[in-house]
Amino acid sequence: MSKDMIKNAIGRLVPTSVNGEKVIPFKGINNHRPQGNKYAPRISTAIDFPDKDSKLQPSLEKALKAAGMKDGMTISTHHHLRNGDFIANQVFKIAQENKVKDLVWFPSASFPCHAPIIDQLKDGTINRIEGSMNGPLGKFVSEGKMKGTAVLRSHGGRYQAIQDGEVKIDIAVIAAPTADSFGNANGLHGKSACGGLGYALADFQYADKVIIVTDNLVDFPAVPMQVEGNYVDYVVKVDSIGDPNKIVSGTTRITKSPDRLMIADLTTKFCQAAGILVNGFSFQMGAGGTSLAVGKNFHDIMRRDNIKARFAVGGTTKYAVQMLEEGYLDYLLDAQTFDLEAVRSMQKNPNHIDISIFHCYDFHGKGTYESRIDVLTLGATEVDINFNGNVNTHSDGYLLHGIGGWQNCLYAKCTILPIPLFRTRIPVIRDEVTTVTGPGELVDVIVTERGIAINPNRQDLLDAVKGSGLPLKSIEEMKDEAEKICGNPAKPELDDEVVAVIKWLDGTVIDSVYKVKT
Amino acid sequence: MSKDMIKNAIGRLVPTSVNGEKVIPFKGINNHRPQGNKYAPRISTAIDFPDKDSKLQPSLEKALKAAGMKDGMTISTHHHLRNGDFIANQVFKIAQENKVKDLVWFPSASFPCHAPIIDQLKDGTINRIEGSMNGPLGKFVSEGKMKGTAVLRSHGGRYQAIQDGEVKIDIAVIAAPTADSFGNANGLHGKSACGGLGYALADFQYADKVIIVTDNLVDFPAVPMQVEGNYVDYVVKVDSIGDPNKIVSGTTRITKSPDRLMIADLTTKFCQAAGILVNGFSFQMGAGGTSLAVGKNFHDIMRRDNIKARFAVGGTTKYAVQMLEEGYLDYLLDAQTFDLEAVRSMQKNPNHIDISIFHCYDFHGKGTYESRIDVLTLGATEVDINFNGNVNTHSDGYLLHGIGGWQNCLYAKCTILPIPLFRTRIPVIRDEVTTVTGPGELVDVIVTERGIAINPNRQDLLDAVKGSGLPLKSIEEMKDEAEKICGNPAKPELDDEVVAVIKWLDGTVIDSVYKVKT
Repeated sequence: MSKDMIKNAIGRLVPTSVNGEKVIPFKGINNHRPQGNKYAPRISTAIDFPDKDSKLQPSLEKALKAAGMKDGMTISTHHHLRNGDFIANQVFKIAQENKVKDLVWFPSASFPCHAPIIDQLKDGTINRIEGSMNGPLGKFVSEGKMKGTAVLRSHGGRYQAIQDGEVKIDIAVIAAPTADSFGNANGLHGKSACGGLGYALADFQYADKVIIVTDNLVDFPAVPMQVEGNYVDYVVKVDSIGDPNKIVSGTTRITKSPDRLMIADLTTKFCQAAGILVNGFSFQMGAGGTSLAVGKNFHDIMRRDNIKARFAVGGTTKYAVQMLEEGYLDYLLDAQTFDLEAVRSMQKNPNHIDISIFHCYDFHGKGTYESRIDVLTLGATEVDINFNGNVNTHSDGYLLHGIGGWQNCLYAKCTILPIPLFRTRIPVIRDEVTTVTGPGELVDVIVTERGIAINPNRQDLLDAVKGSGLPLKSIEEMKDEAEKICGNPAKPELDDEVVAVIKWLDGTVIDSVYKVKT
Repeated sequence: MSKDMIKNAIGRLVPTSVNGEKVIPFKGINNHRPQGNKYAPRISTAIDFPDKDSKLQPSLEKALKAAGMKDGMTISTHHHLRNGDFIANQVFKIAQENKVKDLVWFPSASFPCHAPIIDQLKDGTINRIEGSMNGPLGKFVSEGKMKGTAVLRSHGGRYQAIQDGEVKIDIAVIAAPTADSFGNANGLHGKSACGGLGYALADFQYADKVIIVTDNLVDFPAVPMQVEGNYVDYVVKVDSIGDPNKIVSGTTRITKSPDRLMIADLTTKFCQAAGILVNGFSFQMGAGGTSLAVGKNFHDIMRRDNIKARFAVGGTTKYAVQMLEEGYLDYLLDAQTFDLEAVRSMQKNPNHIDISIFHCYDFHGKGTYESRIDVLTLGATEVDINFNGNVNTHSDGYLLHGIGGWQNCLYAKCTILPIPLFRTRIPVIRDEVTTVTGPGELVDVIVTERGIAINPNRQDLLDAVKGSGLPLKSIEEMKDEAEKICGNPAKPELDDEVVAVIKWLDGTVIDSVYKVKT
């Protein structure tokens, strides 16, 4: 154990400082109380924005220069354009051409389309990414090639870090499918429509300079004002902010895998047996194939038994829209709109509500929506016999995924992980996860194709399903089954060097990610 | 001149400190650049709000005690319930019963229904009001009976003062026609519906503790979330927050006075001659009888000449709703909903947009909507030959009105004051106004029943209407006409004591209001 590492409350080694800043080790659930006051941005004045042309800049480069881009700055982007985003890559290409160095890229998430940024990571234009790693960027980081240390935060943790002043954004670059010259903007209209823009909220509220980049500049006012122009410094019109085919998916589909469908069915049966599916209940599900299957099962039961849910929180797809339109949902609260049907619904349906990450996930606000959610499903790359979950690394140690809302969602009343017992002969349930993304204390139920394990700390759930005939097992039993089939899994080969840290939703450090031996 | 008074940039005497705090004298238009950072509220944690019952309090008294109400605190309320509000009076009655002293009441506006608060002003429960004075409260202040000095701010200036930390709100009490137990709230639904709640925005964003008081507690989520529950500490259910008949008016009516109608007609003709009424124009008008008459004239012309306006900003009534519904307005941006028709429109029409004071008026943001407004009408109790305007005091020195959005509106591209030459034989145009609410530099046109005076600094407007046949006069000519009819007006009899100060929209002090000799 290096002298710069310390064991946190769940026994994981974490650095005492990251990128030159002291950090706080994870203290256990609900044990860290924040001190002090929120970050306070500089006071602006309308003197500097006298008329309708005040904010317009002829190019992204001019806007970045007007915003004072320089060495060492933190530049943020959002991920509502998903794998179709054209803007983040341009920002760092411009920085590189202008010989700006040591930037921090602070995206709300990154996608495979951002692989070209490896070029600016290599030559020192970018010091590090603080944000999700997906695919090529994660591999680059895992192999120890990034100059600085990656910092991964949940969606809510990202809002918290900005709000609390842990991360100071110098320039926020917000790609907007529709905007006006005042900077009011939304994702609902225009050729690059993506739905909501709720992940950019903290960025425009707290960044020193805010740049809107749009390919659909309309007359004032652009409504709805998902981005409020009163926070915006510059507006740039470009030909295209992204590839519409990759911004929204036409292909979000319910799984067809028999194993995954069985997991979905068991999950649904558990919810029924536990008495969760009753009038007025609430749920949150992602857009993965298994989650969608659970949602479809819920929908079928609601139709059959005439049950209405009060609300669902999404990541929203056509399936949730259908529930809303058929009247089985009063409200759909949506922080991320995945397909065109969902975009269309948000455009026209006043009960399809555009919410932000602040609303559902900011742990350093006066409560979050998660405490109102009756049942919620999540994925995981690994879980362990203490119910700890990992969504960031694979069992070979590679950091290939962001946290997303995963940690934040653990605060729902019943958190279920419907996961396969193994993937390509690698067991998913282990003695110890490679990386702890979230502590087992908050993981309530694990459903696999071979059975259901309920966290022993949820006696209420154990009692509720007693005598239901569900295939209840201990987590150890399920681990043993997996190992009987796949053998005892090898440990990943890792170096001592910490390439990334995983922050918990309260800003403390819950785990470290190590360099993979190549 | 007292040693504690100083002449500001327009030659008005103002105190160097108010209520023990140093203040900045008005420096002239666009000459005060704010320094430093916004106010930063304390960081909260969701640990304190774990479930659906966490925020509920059984009574307003219990909520105020839970919020830590004590001597010297600043308590804010909003005025969306107008003259029907039951809540503000209850707050200070509770404070009085609990022997709390020296409070500051910080309303977004006060109404005659708040006269009972004089009782708490008299016995020291309340030290002072920082907010608009209307009717009985204004008389009380004018006669020097309030312990502290009143501070009057425009609607935008109130947001600015909170945002910049000039006023720190300890407890915000927000009466809400609909709310859920998380604190999400709106004014659109319920028996006490008032429309938007945009005047409460800074209150819930920046107050240390936020209490929602509702008479319509609905299941989570209450939507739209005009108040975001993530900012809310306590929720109280009461039987009634106000008198529906006085919350929204059924009687907002176009003037029937022949003189006022003539003023409205001249105003309209001026706008036509000046080339303002063209496709895509924008306007803002209040709910006064003369303004409504101007609006009706606009509507008639738009119908006749097939002109469409891009947007109007309100204070909204059924007349603006009609324009929107007939397609002569693309958008109605509404910060205050005056009648039931307007409430109904905001409930159902996605182009009737709920905006806040932050959006249209905060001068210490990155621009305001006012710079986008082509033409705007305002009232005044007095104007002078330098085009300075007064909306606060009457010519006898009594402080009887708040500033409202008056100062903020002066930043529109063409600001017109349609006012009578005299009221009950008291001339409205004077050598010098009793109180300067806004500097003449920003007042563009004064329209009376006897003619139109254009500010000499608006050569563009003088050129635009040249040869139009409009009855153009100098402001001095109009003053002389008034004095020929009414005689030379007497000066008010005032004491040296400053009972109130008028803040300009940038936080500097533009004028003082003196005690009236009784």
